Amino acid sequence: MNVNIDRFIEEYNELSKIGRKDDGGITRLAFTDVDFEFRERIKEICNSLDLEIEEDGAGNIWARKNGTEIDLEHIIIGSHIDTVQSGGAYDGTLGVMSGLEVIRILKENNVIHKHSIDVVVFSVEESSRYDISTVGSKLITGKIAPKMLKNYCDAAGQSLYNELIRNDFNPNELTDAIKRVETSKCFFELHIEQGPILEAKECSIGIVEGIAAPIRLKVNILGSDAHSGACPMEMRKDALTVASQIILDVEKIANKESEHKTVATIGKCIVLNGAMNKVPGEVELYIDIRGIDRRSMVMSCGNIELDIDKVCKNKGLDYRIKVLCDEYPVILNADLNNIVEESCKKLDLKYMTMQSGAGHDTMNIAAKTDATLIFIPCKDGVSHNKNESVNKKDIQNGIELLYDVIYKVSA
Amino acid sequence: MNVNIDRFIEEYNELSKIGRKDDGGITRLAFTDVDFEFRERIKEICNSLDLEIEEDGAGNIWARKNGTEIDLEHIIIGSHIDTVQSGGAYDGTLGVMSGLEVIRILKENNVIHKHSIDVVVFSVEESSRYDISTVGSKLITGKIAPKMLKNYCDAAGQSLYNELIRNDFNPNELTDAIKRVETSKCFFELHIEQGPILEAKECSIGIVEGIAAPIRLKVNILGSDAHSGACPMEMRKDALTVASQIILDVEKIANKESEHKTVATIGKCIVLNGAMNKVPGEVELYIDIRGIDRRSMVMSCGNIELDIDKVCKNKGLDYRIKVLCDEYPVILNADLNNIVEESCKKLDLKYMTMQSGAGHDTMNIAAKTDATLIFIPCKDGVSHNKNESVNKKDIQNGIELLYDVIYKVSA
Repeated sequence: MNVNIDRFIEEYNELSKIGRKDDGGITRLAFTDVDFEFRERIKEICNSLDLEIEEDGAGNIWARKNGTEIDLEHIIIGSHIDTVQSGGAYDGTLGVMSGLEVIRILKENNVIHKHSIDVVVFSVEESSRYDISTVGSKLITGKIAPKMLKNYCDAAGQSLYNELIRNDFNPNELTDAIKRVETSKCFFELHIEQGPILEAKECSIGIVEGIAAPIRLKVNILGSDAHSGACPMEMRKDALTVASQIILDVEKIANKESEHKTVATIGKCIVLNGAMNKVPGEVELYIDIRGIDRRSMVMSCGNIELDIDKVCKNKGLDYRIKVLCDEYPVILNADLNNIVEESCKKLDLKYMTMQSGAGHDTMNIAAKTDATLIFIPCKDGVSHNKNESVNKKDIQNGIELLYDVIYKVSA
Repeated sequence: MNVNIDRFIEEYNELSKIGRKDDGGITRLAFTDVDFEFRERIKEICNSLDLEIEEDGAGNIWARKNGTEIDLEHIIIGSHIDTVQSGGAYDGTLGVMSGLEVIRILKENNVIHKHSIDVVVFSVEESSRYDISTVGSKLITGKIAPKMLKNYCDAAGQSLYNELIRNDFNPNELTDAIKRVETSKCFFELHIEQGPILEAKECSIGIVEGIAAPIRLKVNILGSDAHSGACPMEMRKDALTVASQIILDVEKIANKESEHKTVATIGKCIVLNGAMNKVPGEVELYIDIRGIDRRSMVMSCGNIELDIDKVCKNKGLDYRIKVLCDEYPVILNADLNNIVEESCKKLDLKYMTMQSGAGHDTMNIAAKTDATLIFIPCKDGVSHNKNESVNKKDIQNGIELLYDVIYKVSA
């Protein structure tokens, strides 16, 4: 079964205008006007495919194509359509659109399938607006209680809880959505890799064995402000030079653990009240430790904390460490991965097994039903960026693989 | 001759209310309403002392007490009264008020002095509003042409040139002011150290031999953005870890040159578009190299540039370096410093010779007349900060020393 890739791409590019800025980046933050505009367009497509549409209390959109045997467990395909600030067109959205394309192929070819198939659009997957990610899937898998959303606010101070209410979603009424996940047969998410590995290894498909989880630390290095000209080198308590030593040490510690695929990143380093003519008095570092080997993650984190203590004491500086989050990696379903692997072989797609460094809705769903995640390459591994780009052929491969897998499990 | 320190402090504290914020910091940016309010109060004091007041085209205020021999070269005492954002009460202002206090003591005691004495309040010493410092003294020493002020604007986009015009100053009419400096006998500025050295060495007075000048570089380290979870350690081009190595190397390079009193500081380190879950793609560093030994400064700068090249190449990253400024240190007048030293001995004040790491109006004036700078300690070396604080005894020592020096040179 071949996908009509040109038609797909044409429709895709048309939809990708929603939220696109002059510089080419797409800003479609959760529950903003452009997000709702996109959701409406998704619903129109679902209507054109005669799907049964429901929206749950978490703002997730569900669209069902009934199978011939209604009593059988249904199958779910899902991802998200919200983006980061100035992101790309494929992160999340490609997974949703691929799911709908699979449905379209089934419908247009009158393919018989016993199991019903749901396509789900998860709400608020990106943390860009409310500083919390994968909210739609977290809510319907009990990972977070609805009332906790009162604590997550956007830059304007509006809570996510109130935003749901304002848009006529009822986060306290999730019973049906929870059941919809728990009673399903299995779940698939197709996603771009958002990393450089598939491209570097010239693979078309990544079969994801586990999703890494983060341990995140906020570290404040406490030195002393001083005038850059008036304070001699030997009298300084420069928080930035101490922070720099820690940044290098964190890299070393992560390099040592890289056989276990643990990574550590300092993506934010803020010199508080920094100025050209000031010796930095305080620096804030955000450390993101990720892996699928929990022991290695904990070991890395412990070594980093010991290093911070040693480096600061050595220079006579104080520090504060706050653990921002400490999560467990998620292992995905091996049986589903075997099915995906068979399909790769059948379609003659070069594939590899790998881990996902980034979090995805799949990691929440995997606690409640058999679930897995399929990666396709993106150019230079670039994502969360306006330069995010995916080859047409890779999109085609992804959809054809997803179709083959769904065809098999829904038959 | 003893200063009435209680009267002085009382008047000083009263004046320090001008521009004071609720948190205790003083924000008296150049040519704002509070700056003009303070200037008016200064003029009232000058009037009460029967001084001849003039304002020049650069916005500097001049107040003269005539000597008994009008044809002799006059002596100048000066500093500034504008502050940084949320600064302290003593940076600059103490120098102006001490000059006026010396005049008051001369007047109240009917002390005969042959040479006339000017107190000058330099305009726009701090760069906080227009991103250019010591403007009043730069203009009247030919360091900058008036029309260049059109290039320096405040946050609202108003140019400093237009601001002068709007306030009835004529920056193109500086002939008299220029002559006033060039025909003078000598110039003194009393200032707080703004560094920790005097306090640490338990000295009451710092006799400043030279004013350090900065070489400033803006360095952009150009790596590649990547997802913190999805990009393996060995495939990263992390701009922050490379920047950290450079920060540590800059410290080492400066430490090596510290026998020549050269310092180097990175006071601003900005991860561009930094985020918790991103490998940093670009980091901007601002490097401030200062010293009074030009050869050592240039050597440090060269070594830093070589290091940046080596570290970046080693990690396969690009970089850009922009020289923001490249100035020459200023050596102050040794004869005047001998006079200051004699007065210290006479008054039994513990003193030391030192350099000024920070820039001051004196550095401009020193090109046109014999000039020097006298430091008194400030608490913990803190300045440009609301916690700036100076001991009453140190203020008294400073004024009594300044009086003794002025008495000698004006006799």
